[in-house]
Amino acid sequence: MGAMSKKAIKPTSVLHPHPVLLVGTYGQDGKPNLMNAAWGGICCGTPPCVSVALREATLTYHNILHAQAFTVNTPTREHVAIADYVGIVSGRDRDKFADTGLTPVKSEHVKAPIVAELPFSLECKLVHHHKLGLHTIFVGEIVGLQAEEAVLGPKGMPDIEKTQAILWGGFGNNHYFAVGEKLGKAFSAGKKLQ
Amino acid sequence: MGAMSKKAIKPTSVLHPHPVLLVGTYGQDGKPNLMNAAWGGICCGTPPCVSVALREATLTYHNILHAQAFTVNTPTREHVAIADYVGIVSGRDRDKFADTGLTPVKSEHVKAPIVAELPFSLECKLVHHHKLGLHTIFVGEIVGLQAEEAVLGPKGMPDIEKTQAILWGGFGNNHYFAVGEKLGKAFSAGKKLQ
Repeated sequence: MGAMSKKAIKPTSVLHPHPVLLVGTYGQDGKPNLMNAAWGGICCGTPPCVSVALREATLTYHNILHAQAFTVNTPTREHVAIADYVGIVSGRDRDKFADTGLTPVKSEHVKAPIVAELPFSLECKLVHHHKLGLHTIFVGEIVGLQAEEAVLGPKGMPDIEKTQAILWGGFGNNHYFAVGEKLGKAFSAGKKLQ
Repeated sequence: MGAMSKKAIKPTSVLHPHPVLLVGTYGQDGKPNLMNAAWGGICCGTPPCVSVALREATLTYHNILHAQAFTVNTPTREHVAIADYVGIVSGRDRDKFADTGLTPVKSEHVKAPIVAELPFSLECKLVHHHKLGLHTIFVGEIVGLQAEEAVLGPKGMPDIEKTQAILWGGFGNNHYFAVGEKLGKAFSAGKKLQ
C-alpha cells in the first residue's frame, strides 16, 4: 500500500464491481421486454427499494414510465450469453423473451413480467425518478419478491453462494465475472481493530 | 433451469452482488470521516455520477449535506478488516482514519478527503438527494478521479482484475467475497443469439 501514489485521470463512470440486473417491463402494447442494466442496486432498507439507471433512448425507460413498474431479475453463470444478448438488442426490433427462450410471468403485485427461469426477482413499483444527464435514475419500491427455494440461505433470503450471481467488470475490463472466494464476515472482521 | 419454480417470500432489500464503497467526508469541524456503504454505484454516464444510500443516523449523511461533497474509495482484499471496521463504528465516537492508519488527503476538486492507500477514488459534488424512507439516496457528479497507475488497464481506466475489488454478499450471506473467474466478454458473448 503506497500512500500518495495516485494520479489524476479523466473523471469517468467507473466503480468495482457492478451487478448484472435484468430489468423486465411491459410496453404499452403489453409486449414484455427485458434489458441488461449494470448501473443499479439496493438504495433503501425500509421500505426496500432498488434503483436502475437508464438512458431515455431505451424502450425500458418508456415502459417503466408508462406502467410505473418494473422487475429486477438476477442472471446466473448459465445465463451470461442471455444477459449479454438482452443488453445488445432493442425490444423495439426484437422479442427478447422469444429469442432467449425465457418465460415472462406477470407479477401479482405490479404491471411487469418476472423471468421464470432466473433464481430471484424483485417486483417494483416506481416511487422516484430523476434525470441526471444521459441517464435517469429510477427507484422502485420492492413490493414483491419471488425466489427459487434452492437459492435460499438459512435466514430464508437469497444467498449469493447459491444464486451464482455474476458481475460486470465495467468499461476498464469489459467482461462478466463470477463471485469468488469468501474473504471474511461482515460486521465482524473489523472488530479486531476496535 | 426450472421455469415457474419460484415462490413468494417477504420483500426485502436483497440483490447480488453489492460493491463495498468507502465514503469519505469532512465534518463541519474539518474532521475527516470514512464509512462503509454497500448500497450505491454508478448511475449516470454523462456527466459521470455515483450514488450512495445512507441513513440519517450516520455522521456521513450530515457531512455530505454540509460540504455538498464526498469521495467514494474502493478497498482491496487487503482492506477487508478496515472496510468492515469503518462500517461498525461511528465517526462521532472515533477517529476512523487514525484507528485504521489510513491517510486522508484533501481532494483538489471538492471538500472531501481521498483515502491515499486505496487504489482509486471518485471525487464527487452532490447534485441530487432524495429521502426514500430509512435511507436517503445521494447522487454525486464525479468531478475528479485519482487512481494508482498500477491498477489501470489498457484503456487507461481502473481494471477490476488489478484493483482486487471486494464485494458484499448482502443479508442472505453476510460475508465479503473476492471477484472470481472471468465468464465472458460483455457486448460480445450474446452475439451468438442474434
